[in-house]
Amino acid sequence: MKFQTSTKLQIPRGTDDIMPGEVEQWQWIEQKAREICSLYDYHEIRTPMFEHTELFQRGVGEATDIVEKEMYTFTDRGNRQISLRPEGTAGVVRSFVEKKVFGQPQPTKWYYMGPMFRYENPQAGRRRQFHQFGVEAFGSPDPLLDAEVIALGMHYFQALGLKDVRVEVNTLGDVESRLQYREKLIAYFEKHIDELSAEAKSRLYKNPLRILDSKDERTKEIAAGAPSLHDHLNDDSRKHFDTVLRALDLLGVPYVVNHRLVRGLDYYTHTAFEYTVDIPGAQAGSIGGGGRYNGLIEQFGGPSMPGVGFGIGLERVLLALGAQQVETPSKAGLDCYLITMGEEAKLVGMKVLQTMRQAGLRAERDYLDRKMKAQFKAADRLQAKTVAILGEDELKQNQINVKQLATGEQVTIALDELVAYIKQLP
Amino acid sequence: MKFQTSTKLQIPRGTDDIMPGEVEQWQWIEQKAREICSLYDYHEIRTPMFEHTELFQRGVGEATDIVEKEMYTFTDRGNRQISLRPEGTAGVVRSFVEKKVFGQPQPTKWYYMGPMFRYENPQAGRRRQFHQFGVEAFGSPDPLLDAEVIALGMHYFQALGLKDVRVEVNTLGDVESRLQYREKLIAYFEKHIDELSAEAKSRLYKNPLRILDSKDERTKEIAAGAPSLHDHLNDDSRKHFDTVLRALDLLGVPYVVNHRLVRGLDYYTHTAFEYTVDIPGAQAGSIGGGGRYNGLIEQFGGPSMPGVGFGIGLERVLLALGAQQVETPSKAGLDCYLITMGEEAKLVGMKVLQTMRQAGLRAERDYLDRKMKAQFKAADRLQAKTVAILGEDELKQNQINVKQLATGEQVTIALDELVAYIKQLP
Repeated sequence: MKFQTSTKLQIPRGTDDIMPGEVEQWQWIEQKAREICSLYDYHEIRTPMFEHTELFQRGVGEATDIVEKEMYTFTDRGNRQISLRPEGTAGVVRSFVEKKVFGQPQPTKWYYMGPMFRYENPQAGRRRQFHQFGVEAFGSPDPLLDAEVIALGMHYFQALGLKDVRVEVNTLGDVESRLQYREKLIAYFEKHIDELSAEAKSRLYKNPLRILDSKDERTKEIAAGAPSLHDHLNDDSRKHFDTVLRALDLLGVPYVVNHRLVRGLDYYTHTAFEYTVDIPGAQAGSIGGGGRYNGLIEQFGGPSMPGVGFGIGLERVLLALGAQQVETPSKAGLDCYLITMGEEAKLVGMKVLQTMRQAGLRAERDYLDRKMKAQFKAADRLQAKTVAILGEDELKQNQINVKQLATGEQVTIALDELVAYIKQLP
Repeated sequence: MKFQTSTKLQIPRGTDDIMPGEVEQWQWIEQKAREICSLYDYHEIRTPMFEHTELFQRGVGEATDIVEKEMYTFTDRGNRQISLRPEGTAGVVRSFVEKKVFGQPQPTKWYYMGPMFRYENPQAGRRRQFHQFGVEAFGSPDPLLDAEVIALGMHYFQALGLKDVRVEVNTLGDVESRLQYREKLIAYFEKHIDELSAEAKSRLYKNPLRILDSKDERTKEIAAGAPSLHDHLNDDSRKHFDTVLRALDLLGVPYVVNHRLVRGLDYYTHTAFEYTVDIPGAQAGSIGGGGRYNGLIEQFGGPSMPGVGFGIGLERVLLALGAQQVETPSKAGLDCYLITMGEEAKLVGMKVLQTMRQAGLRAERDYLDRKMKAQFKAADRLQAKTVAILGEDELKQNQINVKQLATGEQVTIALDELVAYIKQLP
């Protein structure tokens, strides 16, 4: 037993095993995501778990916490710099460009689902391996598509039975508006440079918008007096945002406009949004978010083409479902538990089991040579609808005894009627 | 466009994007795996994509190609040695021990599915990120459970419509038989040590069984004269193997006994097996395999408890399905493509779309302000069953025009009858 104490044989810190009994929830929320995406004509794409590190530096942004502090980066045996994906968009855009999907009829509507990796301080809803469901729609600048993406996420939450989800929405303006605003912002913060936090200072010329959601108290106060982007939007940007809001009104999506919402990533233009819900005990109420990124595809070497999407944190969705005590599926029970008596029946039991399973019945047996009583207990534990008993006598006459566990009703039938008999039970 | 030529913005060598159009096959073979596992009462477990490196050294074996040459190993920001999982069993056994599942009623029947990582020379069916479906049954020494596991894999291939899959099966004996045989084998190879390949020499004391499946010509000739394990089996080992074969006969599983089958991993005892099918163009006919490993759980610090399982390579399954031209699902078509004319109808169209999607219809619209003709083309391309047309006139009268694309039949109906009308179409 000497290895039992080695932490090297334990799960890596901040990661989780998803065990039978809880995995059914995961299967269910993933299946729902697939169903909703299908209704909206979004199709699944799967990109690798890792990419060249440079992809995330360019895609997520070098001045972000993710790239600066949180990526799992390593050198592979071919001396490539590789990083486990910290988010889903960069790989998907890379694929869109590399596979030249931009040359096909647009828009391209994709979704992705799976593990992402960030070296963070682990807590509930913040794991080093976590899981996201995201959508991306490329190739259309239409603000109605922003509304569709936001509504798709809301439809998903509604399908899960999650209540009180709100959307916070903002506009970051188009590139022109943003550049103009950027200059105003830098000029403003330069006047207060000595009072800014070290982090804010380091961001001043790289990404001044991020200073607006600083957590430093003094920086916050200064940011409160900063010029508002909304006062610097050009007509196109304003019109885009107005249309998004009108469509959300029409669709009955509950939203609030939050001028401070800038999101952690560099690449947003126009719409930025977050889904929030109160999760008791967890740090943040955000369960996902996204926005429009009209420059990202070009940044990856593709043509100038717009995009809009979201990413939803599945751990947080499950936390929220749990907090709201939403009923989710659990392990399914068996159709039949087979008990055999004697050596010959034990072997032939394999064939009986196979016949049931081939006919689509969930069937199980004992593999520990347990006594009949213990086998009945196993049948109960596995929530079997019926127990089928095959002894030497039954075997000789090609019969089998079947007991319904709910009613106690018991019949002896021909062996080759077993499947049909179980299937016709209520 | 300066980044377009950078390989750093391309997919990492040996990995793949699974694109819409092919991802439907993946979804389908995964769904089938889930269905079959449910029939056999195997439940899903998900372990992290990476583990402490030591886990794989102990679990897979230090003298294996996988651990020696193929693992993606790196140091994380907390100075831990971490490896991307090269196979599924080690993590699952770690979880079984760490979560003390051995204390619950046995057997424990689990399946897993997902990405694995090996730094290999990429070719068809051999990728650096590849995907496996595997099952593990812990806690029972019963040879009938070996037969169940083998039969489950065959049931899976049959459910996919894959033909001509055969099982090659062998026994490696129990620990006692294997230790005794190991000594005989070392003694035999020592007599020929000068003629062995460098690889075989290096394995002589670490894992002499692996010399039996050497690819070196001269080593092969020597191995052909080596003593056979089957002549050194004790009674228990012989009886176990006989029962497995009897059960396979009874279940109609097509197998051949292959005395040379030792599998690449250190930890097998008793049964070892491989599923093979001819895949034109691919190097190996093996699409999966497994066996019994009665010492592995103890090796991870758990109690002495037996296990049996398999791993199936999903890339290879898809290659085989393709080679046999098995029909697999493709992208589903739309129920309705919505065309709108005019600014007002365009906005209200979002609400119409939402109503259809909320009712479970797959619906799409134009987001590029295309002319009507181009929108009809899009409806065709997306295999829409119907096109719904909402113009200014229809809008005023709360009506909508619906055309069935297969028959050309066209009707004008009340807007709030749209869902019911489409649902009742054949």
